[in-house]
Amino acid sequence: MGISLGANQYGKAETHVVRITRDGSHHEIRDLTVSIALRGDFAAAHLEGDQANVLPTDTQKNVVFAFAREPGVGATEVFALDLARHFADICGPVEVARVTVHETAWGRITVDGAPHDHAFVRTGHETRTAAVTVQGRGADQRAWVVSGIQDLVVLKSTGSEFRGFLADRYTTLADTDDRVLATSLVIDWRHASATVDDADPGAWDDRFTRVRERLLARFAAVHSLALQQTLWEMGKGVLETEPALDEVRLKAPNLHHFLVDLQPFGLANPGEVFFAADRPYGLIQANVVRDDAADPGLAWPDDAVR
Amino acid sequence: MGISLGANQYGKAETHVVRITRDGSHHEIRDLTVSIALRGDFAAAHLEGDQANVLPTDTQKNVVFAFAREPGVGATEVFALDLARHFADICGPVEVARVTVHETAWGRITVDGAPHDHAFVRTGHETRTAAVTVQGRGADQRAWVVSGIQDLVVLKSTGSEFRGFLADRYTTLADTDDRVLATSLVIDWRHASATVDDADPGAWDDRFTRVRERLLARFAAVHSLALQQTLWEMGKGVLETEPALDEVRLKAPNLHHFLVDLQPFGLANPGEVFFAADRPYGLIQANVVRDDAADPGLAWPDDAVR
Amino acid sequence: MGISLGANQYGKAETHVVRITRDGSHHEIRDLTVSIALRGDFAAAHLEGDQANVLPTDTQKNVVFAFAREPGVGATEVFALDLARHFADICGPVEVARVTVHETAWGRITVDGAPHDHAFVRTGHETRTAAVTVQGRGADQRAWVVSGIQDLVVLKSTGSEFRGFLADRYTTLADTDDRVLATSLVIDWRHASATVDDADPGAWDDRFTRVRERLLARFAAVHSLALQQTLWEMGKGVLETEPALDEVRLKAPNLHHFLVDLQPFGLANPGEVFFAADRPYGLIQANVVRDDAADPGLAWPDDAVR
Amino acid sequence: MGISLGANQYGKAETHVVRITRDGSHHEIRDLTVSIALRGDFAAAHLEGDQANVLPTDTQKNVVFAFAREPGVGATEVFALDLARHFADICGPVEVARVTVHETAWGRITVDGAPHDHAFVRTGHETRTAAVTVQGRGADQRAWVVSGIQDLVVLKSTGSEFRGFLADRYTTLADTDDRVLATSLVIDWRHASATVDDADPGAWDDRFTRVRERLLARFAAVHSLALQQTLWEMGKGVLETEPALDEVRLKAPNLHHFLVDLQPFGLANPGEVFFAADRPYGLIQANVVRDDAADPGLAWPDDAVR
Repeated sequence: MGISLGANQYGKAETHVVRITRDGSHHEIRDLTVSIALRGDFAAAHLEGDQANVLPTDTQKNVVFAFAREPGVGATEVFALDLARHFADICGPVEVARVTVHETAWGRITVDGAPHDHAFVRTGHETRTAAVTVQGRGADQRAWVVSGIQDLVVLKSTGSEFRGFLADRYTTLADTDDRVLATSLVIDWRHASATVDDADPGAWDDRFTRVRERLLARFAAVHSLALQQTLWEMGKGVLETEPALDEVRLKAPNLHHFLVDLQPFGLANPGEVFFAADRPYGLIQANVVRDDAADPGLAWPDDAVR
Repeated sequence: MGISLGANQYGKAETHVVRITRDGSHHEIRDLTVSIALRGDFAAAHLEGDQANVLPTDTQKNVVFAFAREPGVGATEVFALDLARHFADICGPVEVARVTVHETAWGRITVDGAPHDHAFVRTGHETRTAAVTVQGRGADQRAWVVSGIQDLVVLKSTGSEFRGFLADRYTTLADTDDRVLATSLVIDWRHASATVDDADPGAWDDRFTRVRERLLARFAAVHSLALQQTLWEMGKGVLETEPALDEVRLKAPNLHHFLVDLQPFGLANPGEVFFAADRPYGLIQANVVRDDAADPGLAWPDDAVR
Repeated sequence: MGISLGANQYGKAETHVVRITRDGSHHEIRDLTVSIALRGDFAAAHLEGDQANVLPTDTQKNVVFAFAREPGVGATEVFALDLARHFADICGPVEVARVTVHETAWGRITVDGAPHDHAFVRTGHETRTAAVTVQGRGADQRAWVVSGIQDLVVLKSTGSEFRGFLADRYTTLADTDDRVLATSLVIDWRHASATVDDADPGAWDDRFTRVRERLLARFAAVHSLALQQTLWEMGKGVLETEPALDEVRLKAPNLHHFLVDLQPFGLANPGEVFFAADRPYGLIQANVVRDDAADPGLAWPDDAVR
Repeated sequence: MGISLGANQYGKAETHVVRITRDGSHHEIRDLTVSIALRGDFAAAHLEGDQANVLPTDTQKNVVFAFAREPGVGATEVFALDLARHFADICGPVEVARVTVHETAWGRITVDGAPHDHAFVRTGHETRTAAVTVQGRGADQRAWVVSGIQDLVVLKSTGSEFRGFLADRYTTLADTDDRVLATSLVIDWRHASATVDDADPGAWDDRFTRVRERLLARFAAVHSLALQQTLWEMGKGVLETEPALDEVRLKAPNLHHFLVDLQPFGLANPGEVFFAADRPYGLIQANVVRDDAADPGLAWPDDAVR
């Protein structure tokens, strides 16, 4: 009876790089935290401690900084592609390189009514993400791109029901036709292709902006019968307007807002005062897929070593 | 040789209340996390376990919810004042009531170019705060109001020097005349009076907005010779334009951005690629005070039981 | 061109239940945070907002509390099995029920040299985990059990090398034959069967204790040539001594401890003073599997909706 | 009307240093996170951006590492004293130096029944702390030492009442004579003198161990009528057995454990199943002082710039 090495991967996680692009005193800023994972022929490192095939994570970190200089950071997805292709191309033992980026948004500070050239303030509560997987090298190389958003916190103060559900001996919840619906969304969308129109340097950023706006608009406009239905409508809404996307995955904690019983104090509470609870919370996950979607391949994290 | 009870306080911390104000389908939302601390004649509770003077923290939580309904939540500072005065007024053993509020900002979601009536998204990275202290009751009652902001993260990509500093045998840092200056600000400002013009229901909110904008504008505009100087100029800038404020306290971690040495890879790095470090970090704190400021009294947290 | 619902699941997450078992004044305590995820026939809830098949997450929470009373909490794995089987058994639309538990350890406080009957203190930095998946009902029902440990932080101050690695133009790291090796382990082990000897109520707990000790002993005893090799030896070591386990999955951030250069201050640093860095960090993941392991089935989280 | 600089301080925060002491293959480890704050003549840095008086925080970090090598790290309090005295002694503008240390505890891994020479595992949930303040230099130099513990989580499953409290129109809580009492303690104790018997290198560590055990034993043994009373008895208990201590300050969130109502499911719940809530929580703070205590001087954080 033997024992064997199964799936494995390694890489440098959370290299936090800030790239300033200078045009005189007018600066652009991009703030990325980059994680790299390499899969391939690393059995000797595990079984014998032989590092001959192991590109150190320290070197991977160096590449992040060097690439931030040259070729530089355009769209987040392109930077992730550049990095993943590099490791797949030049590192013999690597079969699959996966690069995940979390981007922090900065806005310009306003001074005397005008946006400042080189002073910035963190804007937004959410984080933009990108995850790129590259497999193989040369003519056989394949690439998958997933973009996403984390911690997008939204709330509807009405327009949300929850009723007609399955009840059993453990059910105490009552039907409601008007509740607060709040969640902190983690959403990822898979692009049908790893390339966009090269003529437009802002194409990836524009697509991100459109998807974000569409998600928010659907959340707002859909009369919710359940968080499940809201997620479905949000994902479907994006695929309907973004032909270059093949799939949307949504993960949504139900941030319960409980109507407070004020009767002991002689007060009515017509949907006005809520206790925002921390835990427990419902957690709803749903994937929405185009019927003729491309094979997802390695686009999503490998469960075995995610 | 005896042993005595010293300073003490107690109260309910972090009651998270969300208040919806409905005008048909057009809703306003206010999202507050409220902490209460009471000081007074509570020796018996400690020394003998006698609760006769102790208003339970559970009751305090109830008051937060009841007051959110009636009188309701206008400006954050007013809600805190209402709560603190209540405990000082009605609870005999209470000598000082202190109420601290953290407010989460929500913006309206845009649908078809228009702000939605009742769908919201978390905006901004920072938290608005208010801390109110009320002492005594009746004609002798006094009140102090401090407003503030937390986690206001800002960055200047140039316009910041650090040189000419004290050096000794442990100094390895070199002078620089161009660095990235970034910090996550915690700033509190003390109002000269606990009241504003009652004719204007938005006066507290307007003042908050003005102070925030002034702080950001000064951060951006001041050519920084040190974070100390930037803080001083920010605080002074606020006091110059806000006559109703007496003091500004600023606390600023220096979020170091180190220029990466790319020479080993044959690349120059003319202020473009930075490693954003986590720890350690410089921590700078400075108070800026108007010369004829009112006595701060109990405005600030009591160090003995903060 | 159509759009379809893909993989989905939902459930109540992080219900924090504390179970006291009383034998006079001698109490036992078990402190569990329970998350439930159900998969099955929930398309109508998404596509039409029809909740007829949806057992509310509120009801799931109620079941956690009710089951903590009856049948009660024995071993963590058994409690998770009881819950998962319940949802698979009684809820028609459910095809797969997955229950994850995080357990906080409490030790007895010592008073006058003896362990106290009902006073406890949190011990240990790590968290014990269990994840149970149950599929189907009746005679066809299958169950998988994974146990684990999180945040097990370990450090070797010597006995760790890293050299002979792949180098390229981006490599600046030097070989070392003596470094600090530190990590915060997340380790899961899959049991070959969902049942243990029923005659021994402590069998699951005993197995957990043995695996934890074996993992630590291997970490300590193995002369490390790389973190990869250490993980492999830890996983292999467990499978060698625990015939009832089929697989071990290890995830280990390399918590870098950098030797500080004290030469500018005229001091040598012979492996004594280290800077413990936060980010970035290497992240190593490896699975170790018995060659004749049972089919893992649904033991591990489904990547599509993890 | 002028505007002036008020209280201010600066320093390097959270330098994370790990010190290995080697005796052949037998190693000792000390894991400290050190924060420094300097007060003094720093007005020019603020008002004019003149750094001539400013010892950079980078230099302060260097001193932490250099001192970890020489004189090395014995007791946490002594290391903090060494650092604080250094800055007060050698840095002209410094009037007060304050050094705060958080210490992470490591235990030895057991291999074949014996503690390993140089392999360690994080033990305990809590953090040991020390805060030292040094004022002046030469013969006039004064020093204060405060030791402490953070995140010491304790729970009593019985032996805790809460009744007879003040009730008003907002009170809904019922009296109870048997509840779960749980808290996560932050406790600091002030030493009467900054020195201990130099003949005993372990004197500070021994004192820490005794205080921790005494605190836990009092928490366990006192029949609690309120958390206030428990805190008082814990603080008093320490001062009674530790003549070298002058004051104990305790801060305790009341981690509410609510008895779950299982009647809807036909189950009694005789003090067995509890929901452990997150927020809101009661927060109780109490100081216990010896009547003939030495003047606390600058022992405690300065409220103005804490």
